[in-house]
Amino acid sequence: MATASPPATIKFLQTPTGSAWLDQAMAHLDVILLDHAQCERKAAGVAMGLINRYPADGALVTALIPIAQEELTHLAQVNQWLERRGIPLRPLSPPPYGAQLRQQVRPQEPHRLLDLLLISALIEARSHERLGLLAQHCPDRALAQFYHSLMASDARHYGAYWVLATNRFPRHHVDERLGQLAQVESDILAHLHPEPRIHS
Amino acid sequence: MATASPPATIKFLQTPTGSAWLDQAMAHLDVILLDHAQCERKAAGVAMGLINRYPADGALVTALIPIAQEELTHLAQVNQWLERRGIPLRPLSPPPYGAQLRQQVRPQEPHRLLDLLLISALIEARSHERLGLLAQHCPDRALAQFYHSLMASDARHYGAYWVLATNRFPRHHVDERLGQLAQVESDILAHLHPEPRIHS
Repeated sequence: MATASPPATIKFLQTPTGSAWLDQAMAHLDVILLDHAQCERKAAGVAMGLINRYPADGALVTALIPIAQEELTHLAQVNQWLERRGIPLRPLSPPPYGAQLRQQVRPQEPHRLLDLLLISALIEARSHERLGLLAQHCPDRALAQFYHSLMASDARHYGAYWVLATNRFPRHHVDERLGQLAQVESDILAHLHPEPRIHS
Repeated sequence: MATASPPATIKFLQTPTGSAWLDQAMAHLDVILLDHAQCERKAAGVAMGLINRYPADGALVTALIPIAQEELTHLAQVNQWLERRGIPLRPLSPPPYGAQLRQQVRPQEPHRLLDLLLISALIEARSHERLGLLAQHCPDRALAQFYHSLMASDARHYGAYWVLATNRFPRHHVDERLGQLAQVESDILAHLHPEPRIHS
């Protein structure tokens, strides 16, 4: 059994990923890679969705354009890895993680924007943590190096979403809501989803 | 009255843009710039939408990732122009062009994919033509130069959409459907929309 301990810098996350997820991921590296492509595609879509919803917020648009572009570059890189490993592209059913987090978004503005930014920050933080575990434990050294190379940008992304939140909302509101959402995020992951996914 | 003649290379378009559009655009350059930002945002969204709809078509995803990224770079550049000219970002009502073209998309596959690719090709071709007219006639030389710099990538984009179509469908099907859609596209623009837009 692999031992999972997250980098200390991922201060947003309430509960670190346990060894059950890492064992599941290590046993299904090809499915994880397929799901990873979907995660990068969805992350680009989330940034694009925020740009589409708040096109008159120039600072938000300016911050999210390079994030969407970077996620798309990662999607291309993950697809190259899939091709290299001979894994045909195919859609996978998503784990409940994303939908359950989206249920937390309060419908009224400005709460809606705050929740969307903080949920994106949490998803990026969790991705950063789990890609770090894959980088540490993946037996294919080249693939491990690839995961390592993605970690820094996910860290930048969760920082960027957090800065967007703190530039638009009082700090104590951000901290309080982040604490609530981080608890939900950890609760969702407390029971391992039976299908191997980045966010199972 | 300005004289509008399209570059001969825009072979997809049935009818060249007339002087009425160019006169309207020249009289409302700031609104055209605001609408241009929306066009770049929507063009990125169209490429992302195709990636989301056909994620298992590796060649399509590979071709559309750099297009989505480039449209986002253009969005950032147009927003910088708006800031430089002191024009606050604000949403504009869209002209009927996009919605009327989308109504042409046949709901069943594989027709749906062919129609989506050809409509994207036509929109890029028309953008290329009209940005060329702005580049030629805009009295602000720096802004004219900016429009000129965007033309080449729109030309590459309409070529890329056309190649995606011809790689997936028999050439005579592509040509026949392109002819039909190009006629619709020109018919939509035959009556100038009263509000100045890139596709009015």
